[in-house]
Amino acid sequence: MNGAESLFKTLVDAGVDVCFANPGTTEMPMVRAIDEMPGMRAVLCLFEGVCTGAADGYARMAGKPGLTLLHLGPGFANGIAYLHDARRARSSIINLIGDHATWHLSADAPLTSDIESLARPVSAWVRKNRSSEELPGDVADAIAASKVSPGQIATLIIPHDCQMEPAGGAVSVPDVSDPSRVSASTVKKAAELLRQGETKLLFLGGMALRERGLTAAARIAAATGCKLMCETFPARWERGVGLPVVERLPYFPEQAMAALSPFKNVILAGATSPVAFFGYPGLPSYLIPPESDQFILCRPEDDIAGALEALADELGAAAAVEINATLQLPPLPSGRITPESLSAVVAALLPENAIVMNEGNTSTGPFDILSQSAPRHTALAQPGGAIGLGMPCATGAAIACPDRPVITFQADGSAMYTLQSLWTQARERLNVKTVICNNGSYRILGIELMRAGAKEFGRQAQNLIGLRDPAIDWVSVSKGLGVPAVRVETAEDLARELKRAIAEPGPQLIDAVL
Amino acid sequence: MNGAESLFKTLVDAGVDVCFANPGTTEMPMVRAIDEMPGMRAVLCLFEGVCTGAADGYARMAGKPGLTLLHLGPGFANGIAYLHDARRARSSIINLIGDHATWHLSADAPLTSDIESLARPVSAWVRKNRSSEELPGDVADAIAASKVSPGQIATLIIPHDCQMEPAGGAVSVPDVSDPSRVSASTVKKAAELLRQGETKLLFLGGMALRERGLTAAARIAAATGCKLMCETFPARWERGVGLPVVERLPYFPEQAMAALSPFKNVILAGATSPVAFFGYPGLPSYLIPPESDQFILCRPEDDIAGALEALADELGAAAAVEINATLQLPPLPSGRITPESLSAVVAALLPENAIVMNEGNTSTGPFDILSQSAPRHTALAQPGGAIGLGMPCATGAAIACPDRPVITFQADGSAMYTLQSLWTQARERLNVKTVICNNGSYRILGIELMRAGAKEFGRQAQNLIGLRDPAIDWVSVSKGLGVPAVRVETAEDLARELKRAIAEPGPQLIDAVL
Repeated sequence: MNGAESLFKTLVDAGVDVCFANPGTTEMPMVRAIDEMPGMRAVLCLFEGVCTGAADGYARMAGKPGLTLLHLGPGFANGIAYLHDARRARSSIINLIGDHATWHLSADAPLTSDIESLARPVSAWVRKNRSSEELPGDVADAIAASKVSPGQIATLIIPHDCQMEPAGGAVSVPDVSDPSRVSASTVKKAAELLRQGETKLLFLGGMALRERGLTAAARIAAATGCKLMCETFPARWERGVGLPVVERLPYFPEQAMAALSPFKNVILAGATSPVAFFGYPGLPSYLIPPESDQFILCRPEDDIAGALEALADELGAAAAVEINATLQLPPLPSGRITPESLSAVVAALLPENAIVMNEGNTSTGPFDILSQSAPRHTALAQPGGAIGLGMPCATGAAIACPDRPVITFQADGSAMYTLQSLWTQARERLNVKTVICNNGSYRILGIELMRAGAKEFGRQAQNLIGLRDPAIDWVSVSKGLGVPAVRVETAEDLARELKRAIAEPGPQLIDAVL
Repeated sequence: MNGAESLFKTLVDAGVDVCFANPGTTEMPMVRAIDEMPGMRAVLCLFEGVCTGAADGYARMAGKPGLTLLHLGPGFANGIAYLHDARRARSSIINLIGDHATWHLSADAPLTSDIESLARPVSAWVRKNRSSEELPGDVADAIAASKVSPGQIATLIIPHDCQMEPAGGAVSVPDVSDPSRVSASTVKKAAELLRQGETKLLFLGGMALRERGLTAAARIAAATGCKLMCETFPARWERGVGLPVVERLPYFPEQAMAALSPFKNVILAGATSPVAFFGYPGLPSYLIPPESDQFILCRPEDDIAGALEALADELGAAAAVEINATLQLPPLPSGRITPESLSAVVAALLPENAIVMNEGNTSTGPFDILSQSAPRHTALAQPGGAIGLGMPCATGAAIACPDRPVITFQADGSAMYTLQSLWTQARERLNVKTVICNNGSYRILGIELMRAGAKEFGRQAQNLIGLRDPAIDWVSVSKGLGVPAVRVETAEDLARELKRAIAEPGPQLIDAVL
């Protein structure tokens, strides 16, 4: 076996068997290794941001590392934005980057660049492989690094010659520590605060938003009357009937502060203390009132479900409580498509066990509340704020969960970043239904300009916000990339077309004009 | 004036008056400043790679810095690939990146990242502004840094609060040294080598490929019989009738070595010693035969035209020599579209004074020779190898030169990286005619796999190279983004449609199926 073969054998043996790839010349020995080896599935993405965003969606849903194969510094750079999002989502990702042959680096060939400097801001672990013999060990270390709780990004840079030269075959992955258990004294202290405190909030994030954590949180709420709230953009949030209703922290700091202001006692479980997305003059960075008491039950990297279960037990909470038991769907709306009617149509038609990737931004605000007692589903959001994650993330989620329907709310401005995702969805026949939330603008920027005090916008500012000159014909774009598409302008048409799209196999796009 | 206004006033006063922008919340004070200030033209691009590639094309053609406005680390990261290309092109570029307010950075808000680590690999100059008062001085320094010969990338990171707080108005730009003049002794030594040497090559790059340098090079060639050859991917190359025929160094190292092997004496003028694009086992990094003598007349940053003129004078070369005087066009071909017929059609129909952006990759090899006595034109290539530069670069070139037609050869695989460019071309009504060289694959990778010894490709390798499942309908994609488009499958149809497209105003796309 050569280095590349030993590397992929190590990955496949460790269960890392899907690779989101956009290789180039320096990755050819890895392409040959994939080609000749059973067990590794290569998924071609026509832009590296699709690779990294898909790896993130895959990791969130598969519960194992998302793997990418990228070309040198510039290819990797194209994937950085969604690695940024993945880092904030605490996803487990392994990036393989081919580099020039060791002996060719000093020639400073055109594609040479400082890959490590590019990789470090988005990677918890970066290593440059030095020889083919060390390559399987290096990738085993990368796998281990990516699995450090709750998930990390590991980037391995692999010179071309090290891929080609002989290596000793697969190696096993070093043990990774289990997430830290929270101490009994911490659990006791949290229980005390919840028993005594007046106005109490359990603020949830990360693994607290999976079924085990939520079920324990519901027991705690039933026992103490505390409110449940979660991060503004959870990486993965299990929702719907049978799981507790959790309020999502609003985006703008004024609204977030208002939502948090009633609470004198805040227990953080898997979330860090919430901060404003952006700093605005006269508003603070930290959103919990300074006069409130904050207590950290568990950090994002801890055993969060274990901590919440221990807390529920400590409180003597009932083992089974009735949680959000009744299916409640909004009525199908009619008329013009608005954020409300768009959200209501999707909530009303949500298939059982769906995955909802929500990058609807300003167009899907009401969806959370409207879908809180919809059929059980998984919601994915964008914890890092790098726009354009929606369609790649949905692509990876669909590959991780081929039996689950995926619905993507995709704001139009953001959609333009990674429209290449549609081609991969078509090629892989993925069960992804994309709803373009088409308001013909970067709407959020118009809101921000007004927040910044602009009374009216001049021609240049309008030019930097508006997307209607020319209007983007999403149906034409989507069909061109292989995904059937329709345009709708009323809530009735949206409902009819979404029903149809859900019933048909493979990817579909609906351009919903707001 | 606040910081942002002082910043843009400094730029406008220095003649930097076009801004390729994709702003977000942290850039809103800069958007307001652009909106309220006369003289700055903002061009919205719907992906940051379009901003940076356009800034590169603009800088190459305008002879002044290309300016970008980008959003935080992830927005900047999306532009890195084409900044890599711009760095290799030695283009003059200024990046303005908004960052969180200084007081908000420590909160580690979702979009916070290490922007400097991302910026350094592609920037000769990086600075993080610390106060509104220092902001106009910082941008003046950035302008100066970008103009250091022959051109550099300067990146200025600007906290949100520093944009908003008061500043003292515009400042003037520090003086930038002229390019170094080459010493008389160096010129004399080069003249000696050219007089005495047996087989002589003048290897040209950078500013040697503009009119002044080329005219001097032709005089030198006429006086000494030396051959003229240039870099494989020149940033900007003036060509066609009236300018000397210069052979372009081939891409693959075997062919490049064969082209260079006859020369015992190589004089480098504005080019570094050529190296292989990739390192292949058994082939060297450096392509000039080790037994040949290399002599550096001038480096890329020197006064290259001055050095070549001094050398021509030193050689006593005639002041005016007849150079490539007769227009010669290939006949219009017929039948299937091949790299030969595609190149011949464009060469035969090339309008006077066109700019030809060539990212045709494997599809346009014969174009150089077929167009060497075509009407005078400017050829732009991709010195850095980050694919997808073609359409953004053409976009910027068209904005720099509104009176010149721009023709883009665009390989299909590369085109997918930056197809958002078409929207900006439509919005700005740019005179860009894009020819998609549609071979339905990453053809170069198939070639590289065979070079790497693969006899046949398995399903996975085919999957990583082929773009025909599904086939991309470029006509549909282009129309969806606002650019009229047609598909052609014969050389006759290509000629007819290219003639029509050139005659019509505004952007046009032709999907040429190879």
